Amino acid sequence: MNFPLSRRRFLATTSAVAASGTLLGATRALAAPATEPTPDWQNKPVLDLSQSPHAKLRQVPVSAVTVTGFWAPRRSTNVHASIPSMHDELLAHGRLDNFLRLQGRSTAPQRGPLYSDSDLYKWAESVAFALQSGPNPGLRQTTSAMIRDIVAVQEPSGYLNTYFVEGHKSERMLQHTQEVGHELYCIGHLLQAAIAFYRATGDPTLLNAGIRFVDTYLLPNFGPNPGQTPIIAGHPEIEMSLIELYRTTRNPRYLDLAGYILHGDPRWTIKPSAIVYMYCGIPFTSRTKLEGHAVRCMYACCGATDYFLETGDPAYWTTLNNLWHDLSEHQMYITGGVGARAEGEAFGNPYELPNARAYGESCAAIGNMMWNARMLAASGEARFTDVIERALYNGINSGMSLDGKLYCYRNPLAFDPTTGDVIRNTWYDTTCCPPNLERTLASLPGYVYSTSKEGLYVHLYDSNQLDWHLEDGTPLKLTQQTQYPWQGNVHLTVTPARATEFTLFLRIPGWSQSNTVTVNGQPTAGAQPGQYLPVRRQWHPGDTVELAFDMTPQLLRANPAVTEDIGKVAIQRGPIVFCMEGLDQQAHPAAINLAAFRAHTSTQTTTARFDPNLLNGVIVLEHPGSISPITEQAALYEPATASPQPGTDTTLRLIPYYAWANRSPTAMQVWIPEHEA
Amino acid sequence: MNFPLSRRRFLATTSAVAASGTLLGATRALAAPATEPTPDWQNKPVLDLSQSPHAKLRQVPVSAVTVTGFWAPRRSTNVHASIPSMHDELLAHGRLDNFLRLQGRSTAPQRGPLYSDSDLYKWAESVAFALQSGPNPGLRQTTSAMIRDIVAVQEPSGYLNTYFVEGHKSERMLQHTQEVGHELYCIGHLLQAAIAFYRATGDPTLLNAGIRFVDTYLLPNFGPNPGQTPIIAGHPEIEMSLIELYRTTRNPRYLDLAGYILHGDPRWTIKPSAIVYMYCGIPFTSRTKLEGHAVRCMYACCGATDYFLETGDPAYWTTLNNLWHDLSEHQMYITGGVGARAEGEAFGNPYELPNARAYGESCAAIGNMMWNARMLAASGEARFTDVIERALYNGINSGMSLDGKLYCYRNPLAFDPTTGDVIRNTWYDTTCCPPNLERTLASLPGYVYSTSKEGLYVHLYDSNQLDWHLEDGTPLKLTQQTQYPWQGNVHLTVTPARATEFTLFLRIPGWSQSNTVTVNGQPTAGAQPGQYLPVRRQWHPGDTVELAFDMTPQLLRANPAVTEDIGKVAIQRGPIVFCMEGLDQQAHPAAINLAAFRAHTSTQTTTARFDPNLLNGVIVLEHPGSISPITEQAALYEPATASPQPGTDTTLRLIPYYAWANRSPTAMQVWIPEHEA
Repeated sequence: MNFPLSRRRFLATTSAVAASGTLLGATRALAAPATEPTPDWQNKPVLDLSQSPHAKLRQVPVSAVTVTGFWAPRRSTNVHASIPSMHDELLAHGRLDNFLRLQGRSTAPQRGPLYSDSDLYKWAESVAFALQSGPNPGLRQTTSAMIRDIVAVQEPSGYLNTYFVEGHKSERMLQHTQEVGHELYCIGHLLQAAIAFYRATGDPTLLNAGIRFVDTYLLPNFGPNPGQTPIIAGHPEIEMSLIELYRTTRNPRYLDLAGYILHGDPRWTIKPSAIVYMYCGIPFTSRTKLEGHAVRCMYACCGATDYFLETGDPAYWTTLNNLWHDLSEHQMYITGGVGARAEGEAFGNPYELPNARAYGESCAAIGNMMWNARMLAASGEARFTDVIERALYNGINSGMSLDGKLYCYRNPLAFDPTTGDVIRNTWYDTTCCPPNLERTLASLPGYVYSTSKEGLYVHLYDSNQLDWHLEDGTPLKLTQQTQYPWQGNVHLTVTPARATEFTLFLRIPGWSQSNTVTVNGQPTAGAQPGQYLPVRRQWHPGDTVELAFDMTPQLLRANPAVTEDIGKVAIQRGPIVFCMEGLDQQAHPAAINLAAFRAHTSTQTTTARFDPNLLNGVIVLEHPGSISPITEQAALYEPATASPQPGTDTTLRLIPYYAWANRSPTAMQVWIPEHEA
Repeated sequence: MNFPLSRRRFLATTSAVAASGTLLGATRALAAPATEPTPDWQNKPVLDLSQSPHAKLRQVPVSAVTVTGFWAPRRSTNVHASIPSMHDELLAHGRLDNFLRLQGRSTAPQRGPLYSDSDLYKWAESVAFALQSGPNPGLRQTTSAMIRDIVAVQEPSGYLNTYFVEGHKSERMLQHTQEVGHELYCIGHLLQAAIAFYRATGDPTLLNAGIRFVDTYLLPNFGPNPGQTPIIAGHPEIEMSLIELYRTTRNPRYLDLAGYILHGDPRWTIKPSAIVYMYCGIPFTSRTKLEGHAVRCMYACCGATDYFLETGDPAYWTTLNNLWHDLSEHQMYITGGVGARAEGEAFGNPYELPNARAYGESCAAIGNMMWNARMLAASGEARFTDVIERALYNGINSGMSLDGKLYCYRNPLAFDPTTGDVIRNTWYDTTCCPPNLERTLASLPGYVYSTSKEGLYVHLYDSNQLDWHLEDGTPLKLTQQTQYPWQGNVHLTVTPARATEFTLFLRIPGWSQSNTVTVNGQPTAGAQPGQYLPVRRQWHPGDTVELAFDMTPQLLRANPAVTEDIGKVAIQRGPIVFCMEGLDQQAHPAAINLAAFRAHTSTQTTTARFDPNLLNGVIVLEHPGSISPITEQAALYEPATASPQPGTDTTLRLIPYYAWANRSPTAMQVWIPEHEA
């Protein structure tokens, strides 16, 4: 570690706020502030649930898991291509100049939307997680310098934002600004980056800036008490970051503040449409459905689940479960993406899941995974892990190109290149998704395992090594060897420091209908799809577990209420959702769209083969189908009695959805019309 | 006529504009202005094509046709309920106060969006067309008074707008204002109302105000010449109104100005996205597809067709035909509605025709009808009439409730009441659609017939009487007796003033596959769907024609590229598109959506019966189908191998689409999933 910075202490304000302690919707009075992170910064996971009273599971540190399988090259690309190239893009688009200008070190005007600070913060968080997996002096030095440039513009008041300065200074934290100005959203991302960087390096520079913002600027002036200005999150994010700050500092005022924000402050009247869109401003526990801006909604659910993990408020759990059923039964794409509408980047009506017009913002799929990871920690239930896996392997994984330098903002499930849309781009002026994808890949090892009082949970399968300990302190190593997600066999080697009785909770994926589990060669009964199989025994160093999941390609149909998917099937194999790309269809290489193809569904004869030379190595599926001659000039509406032209038998070729649009522009579809029998 | 106002003459400016005469894209130099409407104001149609050199057909006056059939009660409701109640709504929402305030007669602040003046103008145009069908002293007096209140705020410069005054005055006609401020859109609607009112009453008060705006304010200061400010339509509308003003005054400067606007002025740089959205700003003849804001696009096509009708510019005809093929092959709902996307109220990609999320703004369907009426006049081709009929009976007719007091802005093809959406409303703050529907119904008689040099065209079928003359001046009466659109038999009585040889062009609807035509009882061969059957003969007073069209209900399928309609059928009978409403389905009265229903399509046994007590009298269709038990809690995605629960046979009941949502809230769908055979 090259930067053993001195730890600075900021005196907490002890203003009238703390004294009155009247809180709306939070269950505890504001307590005296603590302003210093706990000194044990190492070996912390993404979410530090070590002292969360209502967490059944506790995440393991990113540093405790070494990924060597499917995700290893993707994570390597992330560190060596995505993060560096995004750094250059951020600088080229003036995101750091915004900070330098305020120090007199740049003459460039303010650039980027008013939430542009958050782009830097999310990028820094990516670096922080990357550093948790191993040293990278170059990235560390660059980021430390960036952090110095960031904290240099913090005002004595604690305020820190490069947009609401100069001519915009008078707009700070007005109600309208709180609703649309992203000030607290930016600080939320600063805090997340700061915590991750502190946990990676012990360097509290950015963290102390965040604490100073909260302690010096936010808590004294804003909140529920008389004389304080109300707070509305605007774009939820501050809630979960305040709670992680609480976990980092143990200062309960941060938790209480998060609870207050989650409850909303009735002193401000907010337009009903804004309450829907922002997914904040009224008590979170009054929500009955997912709606509004999908990322806001998912981030609000993350913060609310964090709040439950700390408080155990049963109203939160009830609401969260209702919302989760809305997610999984009405609102989630088969890819794990959410947010159907481009208009407002929003959830649609129940079952409104258009394919070509799907919005499915990468950030929303990431928010979905983040929320489900919290629900998993609260419950230990595999239904949440199924969603994590679905989103991770498909709707998130699609968001970054295989070379790591192009990003999706939208993740549609069908595509027509004649529209001229370009889905993968190096840069977006609202560049929320690229660093979000980067921090997700960088933090991924933290999602593979959890501990509980009973033992160890295995959530995700991929070749990797865990080096951690049980909650009783017994050192434990565990090794996964597998070709997952291409093959369904997983070999685990369990190596506690000494023979120890504990439970190994093995996730049986919901998509796997036929499963076998053996321990040291002995079959173990009870594996149920969509459940954790608890194997409690005295584990000895070197014990082995063999898992075999059912990788038969599955034809899936959507609930018929999803009107756009009527008469269509999708094909999934293991956790991977597949799609057709036009250029793979030998029968119709010039196809400008795929509407001519039909899948035969009366017999399931999908074949799978691994092609190491295609798209960095993927399984390719082949499925029998037909192709009909249709032309662009055909009538838009024709009598159903007209004899359909007979289709020609053909073989449909499919690749993993996540790998689409990595070659030349071509049509794509996940949902394939069925052949009319 | 009670208001024989003196006709005022405004001196034209003869500024430098007329002298230089440099025009971009228009084919003629600006000529000296004429400022007076032609004195023969009576007996003018919607479009006065009497001197249009490239019109093959000429519309007949609204006053020449007395509608007594299907449209008569709808038109009566329009005059007696819609127009009066919309007047009250307009006043209640301050639309007239905006004018009175500027005269010191109201203290109310400006209300409504910046295009609010146009709402009053469109309403006045509705009245004007109603007055063309017969006297209505009350409406006339109200409207004359309103017109006095409107013209009272015209400034000496000729400028007239109640939004760009006071603090907004400095924004007038800036480039940004022209793009988004609707100043010329408002004047376009003023001109259309003024022309219609002049043609109804001879009162030129409003018309002279419009001429004064154009002559005194617009022409001297704006245009292609050095020193003039460029013009961009922003929201196309001014083009067609200028050309109708040309037809009314014969002042060619108005036609030239329209041509200049249709061409766009290259001196201004317009963002590519705005060029798409506004559908103006570049040469109309460079357009290759429909795109952007659907109403803007349709109105631009109207203006461009008007320009072709006057100039015969072949580049316009080529472009218009290409765009029409795009319309009919890629972009039009089966209801004749257009504009798939709520986002930007815009056309989507080709074949992007979602049902529940359809925008299908009433104004866009009206624009579609207006455009096709112009294309019909230019060509005499029945393909355009088929579109007029489809839009009129379905996607336009749906826009107004049966009681005439509720209006649709959106016209979706499927609806789920649990979304809480309310589709029919008394008022919209952007209230473009309601008076647009009113003027369409009021002007409807003008669309039934045309004349040509060869004789008379019968475009639409409904009981009515024509009292007009052939183009050679021979008086001609024609009577239609029919139960159309409920029955396919039409009885025509042709009564020229004397035996005369001419051609009666009888439209054979494109949907009618089997047709018989007899003249005085003698069969006439040659009737082809989607064509006009020309019957040339010596017509004697009292000659009769019997037409019989094929009213067999037709199951229709969409082009498979319309992905949301795959595996679904729609049912059309005659010109009427049908839909299912949940409350009509006896098998499933509590159905919150219709996803459980399937139509049997192997045999076509749709039955039709007229129910005089339902929805003011409609044909009800019954079609065999099935219903499957689905619940809201079913999984979103399931293996296709799972045995589907067997459906129960049921009878699907359908009503005309236009009559949907006239009872209690219930689910609706036009496209019905097919039973999997």
